[in-house]
Amino acid sequence: MAASKPTLPKGTRDFGPVPMARRLYLLDTIRRVFCRYGFAPIETPSLEQLSVLTGKYGDEGDQLIFKVLNSGDYLRDITPQDLQAGHKALTPRLSEKALRYDLTVPFARFVVMNRNELTFPFRRYQMQPVWRADRPQRGRYREFYQCDADVVGTDSLLCEAEIVLMITDVMAGLRLDDYTIKINHRKILTGVAEAIGAAGREAELSVAIDKLDKIGWEGVRRELAERGFAEEATDQLARYVEMVATPGAPTQLFDRLATLLSQSDAGTTGLRELRTVFDYLDDFGADATRVAFDVTLARGLSYYTGAIFEVKINNAEMGSVSGGGRYDNLTGVFGLPGLSGVGISFGVDRLYDVLDALNLFPEQVTVGTQVLIAQLDEAALPLAFGLLRQLRAAGLHAELYPDVVKLKKQMTYAHQKQVPFVVLIGEEERKSGKLSVKNMATGDQLMFTADDLVAEMRRYHAAH
Amino acid sequence: MAASKPTLPKGTRDFGPVPMARRLYLLDTIRRVFCRYGFAPIETPSLEQLSVLTGKYGDEGDQLIFKVLNSGDYLRDITPQDLQAGHKALTPRLSEKALRYDLTVPFARFVVMNRNELTFPFRRYQMQPVWRADRPQRGRYREFYQCDADVVGTDSLLCEAEIVLMITDVMAGLRLDDYTIKINHRKILTGVAEAIGAAGREAELSVAIDKLDKIGWEGVRRELAERGFAEEATDQLARYVEMVATPGAPTQLFDRLATLLSQSDAGTTGLRELRTVFDYLDDFGADATRVAFDVTLARGLSYYTGAIFEVKINNAEMGSVSGGGRYDNLTGVFGLPGLSGVGISFGVDRLYDVLDALNLFPEQVTVGTQVLIAQLDEAALPLAFGLLRQLRAAGLHAELYPDVVKLKKQMTYAHQKQVPFVVLIGEEERKSGKLSVKNMATGDQLMFTADDLVAEMRRYHAAH
Repeated sequence: MAASKPTLPKGTRDFGPVPMARRLYLLDTIRRVFCRYGFAPIETPSLEQLSVLTGKYGDEGDQLIFKVLNSGDYLRDITPQDLQAGHKALTPRLSEKALRYDLTVPFARFVVMNRNELTFPFRRYQMQPVWRADRPQRGRYREFYQCDADVVGTDSLLCEAEIVLMITDVMAGLRLDDYTIKINHRKILTGVAEAIGAAGREAELSVAIDKLDKIGWEGVRRELAERGFAEEATDQLARYVEMVATPGAPTQLFDRLATLLSQSDAGTTGLRELRTVFDYLDDFGADATRVAFDVTLARGLSYYTGAIFEVKINNAEMGSVSGGGRYDNLTGVFGLPGLSGVGISFGVDRLYDVLDALNLFPEQVTVGTQVLIAQLDEAALPLAFGLLRQLRAAGLHAELYPDVVKLKKQMTYAHQKQVPFVVLIGEEERKSGKLSVKNMATGDQLMFTADDLVAEMRRYHAAH
Repeated sequence: MAASKPTLPKGTRDFGPVPMARRLYLLDTIRRVFCRYGFAPIETPSLEQLSVLTGKYGDEGDQLIFKVLNSGDYLRDITPQDLQAGHKALTPRLSEKALRYDLTVPFARFVVMNRNELTFPFRRYQMQPVWRADRPQRGRYREFYQCDADVVGTDSLLCEAEIVLMITDVMAGLRLDDYTIKINHRKILTGVAEAIGAAGREAELSVAIDKLDKIGWEGVRRELAERGFAEEATDQLARYVEMVATPGAPTQLFDRLATLLSQSDAGTTGLRELRTVFDYLDDFGADATRVAFDVTLARGLSYYTGAIFEVKINNAEMGSVSGGGRYDNLTGVFGLPGLSGVGISFGVDRLYDVLDALNLFPEQVTVGTQVLIAQLDEAALPLAFGLLRQLRAAGLHAELYPDVVKLKKQMTYAHQKQVPFVVLIGEEERKSGKLSVKNMATGDQLMFTADDLVAEMRRYHAAH
């Protein structure tokens, strides 16, 4: 067979030992927090029926779903005439399965299919890759992980407060200390639309407001004009945005808005709910400086119906690293209406980049092998075998260099793999029964009996 | 949107909280053993270039690879005439990416693409799903996990011995105590083929021998006749098989074979290498009763060139749960010849079924939430919040029932979720500052201060 130079599909990545160890640390940290909050793990298949995914992410989303060719002779029933209908019409006949696009739609399908076995309120977390045929660019991949936690089957606002606490615990676990959790409420946006005389148009309004950071107020004003909003409405909107943009505690912002939204049932409800969430957070003793009410926050309005969340790292150039909100009808599309839930999703790839940029990955995370036994001659093997067994039985990560080669080469191997300790068993060691251990960071070399060596390694690695 | 009843693609599965917790236990147990042996994690993308996978698994394998439709207008350059060429010819024009079929070929690609950054000998483990368009049946899925560990860049037979030890550690970790690790050597099969006058035909020979368990000796004889093996050759083969099928220590079996294979260089080499592996295992103090030399073992000969392994659970109706071997030219197909390696793969889905059938999953594995705080009235919330924070800070998995509903409903929730302890905060508890805790297994109810309660829960869950 001719040798060919292999490549990776664009937008995909290999993770070697170092990035992989860091990813495992990141995922484990998030997983541990999810578990402490009583969320249970589930996994859904990578492949879903194409019909389950189609129509859930808008037209643009549908185009970004990776479709899988039917196996066998997928052309069997395709005639030359069928080609003329174009690829969009032909796709469902060539492909009945697709790669999952997010974890939310598969979760909704899971809940509907397992409704009779699940205990509600159902708290689940899910950490799996998703695939999107997006144009790859810096920080945007075609395969990436999502980490979602959702509670469904209750409309208790305690869940919103718990989501905020959970975010603060994840951030603390990752040693991130300069971030903002932005909160808004879909019904406040509805209220604002009503109050400025554009009732029912909060979706368009939000798309425009959402760009405030990027295009400034003049840009938003221009976009709203293009969308046919009256100048008067835009002027009024400006007052709201200015009002809540003025610094102040959330309760002060709520008070300012309350009067203006007093005529809107939706707006009043939204404000009341957010006040309750903030009260709970206060009772929980949450750090109020982390949490900011932001009336311009307008994330993925399509299915959110209550509170919406977004997390920004303040000292990193990066979009949001986490987001979520409450939805009232996630499972309605699969025939199970009226199930309310609230969830949060962490973007592992963005968090990875932030931790990397801020140098926040703990050093010991990338230590794989903790002790390497160098092989100086075959006569040392029985001693080496015994030590290896003892080290591993003590839970230490230990390996024996497999070949008798120059010590320098074995030391280079240990150095490149960041192995902190190398054990040397030469003739002297065989005679004395004591083993030499080299600390690779300091260069120190000490002698131990096997038992003492194991104890010493345990002590060192428990402390690091 | 009309509600449609969702389904799963055939051969795929959802994993709810209980099976998922068990899978995590299984994967973690294997992962910990891999780490103790100095293997470092890597991950490769789910999607590979179709050209990377094609031709590596035989014609049948090529048909079982899931191909992903190109995004955008994949029909742009397809004419009605192209349809006549048939689906096999058209596939590379409609699809340039595919889902990985195993972890071995992606690993070979990874090593070749990263050869300059890797430290050899390179020990990696990889635990990821693979996809095959196989006909689904009991125990055979279209998406399933593989857990592979390989060392490449050394031909030291210590690695073979370490693989055997690693298997025994995984089995012990999973509390499986009745299993057999079968070992053979590709070069012994080569030698047998030479010795019976069918030199170079060990591949065909192995395919037939491999079926011995299923079709018996008469079936194997018939198949060999159909393949054109002389009756004399088959008679001689019968003598070998009988000879090594006679019980005895591996060294005795080696001695019996040595004379017969003395004219074959390959056979002699294979025997010498296996002897060395068994000697190492002896020096390591491995349990010899677990390891059996089996001259009929003939697994996936296409790329194995040295030792081959397979693990069977003796008291379960199940094919092999693990297998592997040494290969000398895994990366040659991608332009990097001469890199020898040895690896092992664990079949997570089969191991799951075995542990399930033998009732070997530890009970505490499926305990998610360890303490539930029932919500009797809103006045108890501040107390509940404080306790929740304390429990979680102590690393315990705790949740607060989110709604004020009848206690019976909350108890049912705790029961169905297998939560072992429920905390009740009624009026009396609010006055006394002591909290009632119900042990759901025994029905006992005790009173504690919050501090004592946290300490008690820690004690209980550390011991369980």
